[in-house]
Amino acid sequence: MSSEASRLNVMAAKNIVIQVTTSAAMSKAGNQLNLAAIGSIADQVSMLAGKGHNIQLVASGTSTSGAKVSGAFNALLSLKEPEGSGLIHVSTHPDESSLASSTIQSTGSTLLIYLSHAQGIVDSKGKVVSTYDPSTALLSPSADTSNPMSLSSSSFVSSAWELASGHGCVVVMASTSETDVLSRIMAGHQIGTVFDPAALTTAAGSAVGSSSSRDMAVRARAASRALQALPTEERVAILNRVAAALIQHQEEILTENAKDVQEAEGKVADSLLQRLVLKPSKISLLAEGIRAIALQEEPIGKLLTKTEVAEGLILDKVTAPIGVLLIIFEARPDALPQIASLAIRSGNGLLLKGGKEAARSNAVLHRVITQAVGPVGPDLISLVQTREEISDLLGLDDVIDLVIPRGSNALVTHIQRNTKIPVLGHADGVCHLYIDEAADLSMALKVMVDSKVDYPAACNAVEKVLLHASWLNKGGFDSVCSALRDAGVLIHAEGEAVTRLLSDAPPAPSGRHEYSALACTLRVVGSMQEAIDHIHAYGSSHTDAIITEDFSQAESFLKAVDSACVFHNASTRFADGFRFGLGAEVGISTSRIHARGPVGVEGLLTSKWIMRGSGQIVAKDNGVSYTHKRMS
Amino acid sequence: MSSEASRLNVMAAKNIVIQVTTSAAMSKAGNQLNLAAIGSIADQVSMLAGKGHNIQLVASGTSTSGAKVSGAFNALLSLKEPEGSGLIHVSTHPDESSLASSTIQSTGSTLLIYLSHAQGIVDSKGKVVSTYDPSTALLSPSADTSNPMSLSSSSFVSSAWELASGHGCVVVMASTSETDVLSRIMAGHQIGTVFDPAALTTAAGSAVGSSSSRDMAVRARAASRALQALPTEERVAILNRVAAALIQHQEEILTENAKDVQEAEGKVADSLLQRLVLKPSKISLLAEGIRAIALQEEPIGKLLTKTEVAEGLILDKVTAPIGVLLIIFEARPDALPQIASLAIRSGNGLLLKGGKEAARSNAVLHRVITQAVGPVGPDLISLVQTREEISDLLGLDDVIDLVIPRGSNALVTHIQRNTKIPVLGHADGVCHLYIDEAADLSMALKVMVDSKVDYPAACNAVEKVLLHASWLNKGGFDSVCSALRDAGVLIHAEGEAVTRLLSDAPPAPSGRHEYSALACTLRVVGSMQEAIDHIHAYGSSHTDAIITEDFSQAESFLKAVDSACVFHNASTRFADGFRFGLGAEVGISTSRIHARGPVGVEGLLTSKWIMRGSGQIVAKDNGVSYTHKRMS
Repeated sequence: MSSEASRLNVMAAKNIVIQVTTSAAMSKAGNQLNLAAIGSIADQVSMLAGKGHNIQLVASGTSTSGAKVSGAFNALLSLKEPEGSGLIHVSTHPDESSLASSTIQSTGSTLLIYLSHAQGIVDSKGKVVSTYDPSTALLSPSADTSNPMSLSSSSFVSSAWELASGHGCVVVMASTSETDVLSRIMAGHQIGTVFDPAALTTAAGSAVGSSSSRDMAVRARAASRALQALPTEERVAILNRVAAALIQHQEEILTENAKDVQEAEGKVADSLLQRLVLKPSKISLLAEGIRAIALQEEPIGKLLTKTEVAEGLILDKVTAPIGVLLIIFEARPDALPQIASLAIRSGNGLLLKGGKEAARSNAVLHRVITQAVGPVGPDLISLVQTREEISDLLGLDDVIDLVIPRGSNALVTHIQRNTKIPVLGHADGVCHLYIDEAADLSMALKVMVDSKVDYPAACNAVEKVLLHASWLNKGGFDSVCSALRDAGVLIHAEGEAVTRLLSDAPPAPSGRHEYSALACTLRVVGSMQEAIDHIHAYGSSHTDAIITEDFSQAESFLKAVDSACVFHNASTRFADGFRFGLGAEVGISTSRIHARGPVGVEGLLTSKWIMRGSGQIVAKDNGVSYTHKRMS
Repeated sequence: MSSEASRLNVMAAKNIVIQVTTSAAMSKAGNQLNLAAIGSIADQVSMLAGKGHNIQLVASGTSTSGAKVSGAFNALLSLKEPEGSGLIHVSTHPDESSLASSTIQSTGSTLLIYLSHAQGIVDSKGKVVSTYDPSTALLSPSADTSNPMSLSSSSFVSSAWELASGHGCVVVMASTSETDVLSRIMAGHQIGTVFDPAALTTAAGSAVGSSSSRDMAVRARAASRALQALPTEERVAILNRVAAALIQHQEEILTENAKDVQEAEGKVADSLLQRLVLKPSKISLLAEGIRAIALQEEPIGKLLTKTEVAEGLILDKVTAPIGVLLIIFEARPDALPQIASLAIRSGNGLLLKGGKEAARSNAVLHRVITQAVGPVGPDLISLVQTREEISDLLGLDDVIDLVIPRGSNALVTHIQRNTKIPVLGHADGVCHLYIDEAADLSMALKVMVDSKVDYPAACNAVEKVLLHASWLNKGGFDSVCSALRDAGVLIHAEGEAVTRLLSDAPPAPSGRHEYSALACTLRVVGSMQEAIDHIHAYGSSHTDAIITEDFSQAESFLKAVDSACVFHNASTRFADGFRFGLGAEVGISTSRIHARGPVGVEGLLTSKWIMRGSGQIVAKDNGVSYTHKRMS
């Protein structure tokens, strides 16, 4: 498989021909202009001219349709305010399926963007290839099935390649239906198919350009299969080599990290800067953690169930690696070796996208780790460092199996909203503590303060205390307020009772608010059922707790509250992979699919069914006599 | 919670005012026209006029921006070919945040569509409400954060409600960024927020209009929690009542089904018609199946692990219902009671969307089942029968946890490509059988024929036979061909060897082809590794098998092949929930997340962590001394 260079020649072009097929600029019936498409192209062309590009906009189709579309382009462009220095010229070309080569030559353009219904050139599996490679067979343009292209694939492809290789004009083929297609192509995004000999690196691992993230994911899967095929000892040996390499290359790592820190100083918040800094002690701890992961039980191929389906026909369900993971993390460079080690232990391939503040640290850590991986090859773990944005990575749902965001709520929410890849994580942690009528008050106060104060910004910190109304008459209300205030917690009032009693307390900003600070909401509820309903209406299904000495009430609460973690008489802060005894923590998930709550290595595993027989057949279910005996 | 009627008044409007805020029609900086947005609106307005609607298009903003935007609308509309009888008139309105009431009155319009950056009115959780209800508090317009609306929410909302309730002009508020926003609003889709007193049904369960699917999902979750709170005996009793009700209402069910069948006759394929028909025997079998589900072990709250975290602090991981499932199924009405019963057994709420061929059958089955549900209420299982399309349902990723498609490959592929809700299913089953050098040939022939012929259209049927090259010299090749041909299987040739040897065989249509018929591809491979690589390159990771007497080779194959099911010396047709002994089958998943391969009731379950303590706190991890003893 050829790796793909970044699209430097595309981004460098000053004079550009943009050829739009009239079938992509007209309605499906063909009689009406598609003004949404034409308007969007006009917006983008105008913006590119504003940035200094000279643009030849060519409507290609029959003379009637070409005249109609080019007329519309002129009319629309005349509505734009002129900006910048680039020129725009609109013309026509008589044939949809041939390239506007004469316009290219007469204008000295070095880039032709061909926009039609086709998303690009597809491979034998129907996937659009980002870079056309003449050595690969069986390529044909993909077409919108509702409006198939008339162009003959072979003649189009050969003239595009001829233009690119013979005349130095790079060709990009993409669909008008892509959002902001021109702007994104010019920003170097891997949209559509590029025809550019320079974009094909001939030697594998060539330093020129970086691979596309899709290609990285495909190669990570192949490498992960090689990793899975290794015996346990060898996977363990890789981890020990990684640990040793971190110690051995400590100086180099610290030097690169210092450059990141220096650049970030004064530009980012102090807390962010603290997370960015690596120290010898942190690196030793990292190495130690990786050796601990190496010592853990083999996670792959663990027997989950064994069933005798019929005599001599045995069915095992065993654990298996998920495949290819995408980890998106913010400033913390120490997340990289931790996550890479978990991926290696569990036989997964990995794409890593780190925050730009830690770019140098991530690069050196990635290099040190992949060098230690050995025979499996560096493709197992790729660091996405190109200008490709997170949005491009999130579109790779056909080659990436799971995305794990490690960072702010905003990052996680953004990712959850913008990808079809399953996301393991949680956007917010709005945890509740309900103090029941039958609570031991001193226990309640102790647990409440710990749940908030131990680490107020953590996702498992309490954000709302629900106090049973009976405490209003028993002095409990005042004790709760004093305990919180003595611990430095600012109380926000919610509901009539608390608002009346604490007239100086600020109101809660909303019914569902994550303070992530020494602050919480206090509300009085009339019953446990009201507390449960409130948690369901306003919680984030992360962790919720009850304090009570009434064990039957407690059991009802534990059963009814529909959250990832539900606790009785314990601090919400225990909701954590390490405290749960899961070893390394992959994250905490509030999704209800795949893994829920604190997730250890098992979150990086799926299962696989293995059946061993001696020639059994189904034969309309008369082939065997089913026993379905559970053996383990 | 109020249920929502369909938007009949919206769809019925002939004279329409479409008010577009200039901030939504200009670039973010505000100096350039957003021609993509304006062009799209012009396309849609022109189309609506073509259908006979009279349209007042109002650009609302300052006099400068209003003139600019209305000028652009006029320019763009003049590019459209006139069609149909509707009139289009473009004007301006001086204030973005107030409604163009005078235009409404002067034109006798009964619908105002207000297009801005805001997606609609949001509730306290930030979700857009489909129907504005003045009895609900705390509503405010959602705004694109990058371009917040200037309108004062309360005055806008009250004048919209005043127009709708006092002047009989329905108001719909939606965002220009929605694809085909106008066309979809006029088709009755639940986009944005509608202000319409008639859309609020005052009596719950009123026959006027049906609930929105979002509302159904929200109520299904509440009902599922009530179901989960019931003791096991009561959930079992519900299932037995459902089984009895099916028998009791058999006549009614058969009558409605007969109407469906009559209407479908001659219009659909015979095989589809067969699946549509219900018979007394089928209903008895259904009832029996439901009683069997009732007898199964309680799936909810099953202990998965038990850990002593610290002295007196015990952590259980138990099974829990997923929440709300969406099942989309095609012609088979018997799928409805089966799936509903699995959902009841596992404590989940359900939205069902059936094929239109079975509409009457589904309606009567749904009514009979929900009547039998009893105190939990009919909201537990909703049948989506409105004009809402599958695409609308697939957008409900915030209120639906899992979608299970039961139907054709095309249906499953469409769903997988168009939703962020996790999908349990498989689009295709391209299963391989590899006949190794060391195979017992007669076993290989027997298993090969069964794997294809037992049910050629099944997803677990073999589509490609990979034959080790050594058989070319041992007579095995001819035996394989004869066995397939004798069983009526058409061989398609792939690769040089087979193409040469079987000159009369048609070529395989592609490297990855699911025949779903008495046909398969035959290819010769040089080694087991080549077979594995081929399966990884062209398979669908469903089920792949090896036939060999070399058990060490077999183990390597079972380990290396990265598919949901991998078999040694057994027919691929065993890949099935019933044959695996899982009891009821939910589906077969080729996803690597949540559940993989044949999935039983466990596919409808997630897990939940329950911790029981006696006041333990974390206190910077000095609060307890961790033991992490695995107890079970």
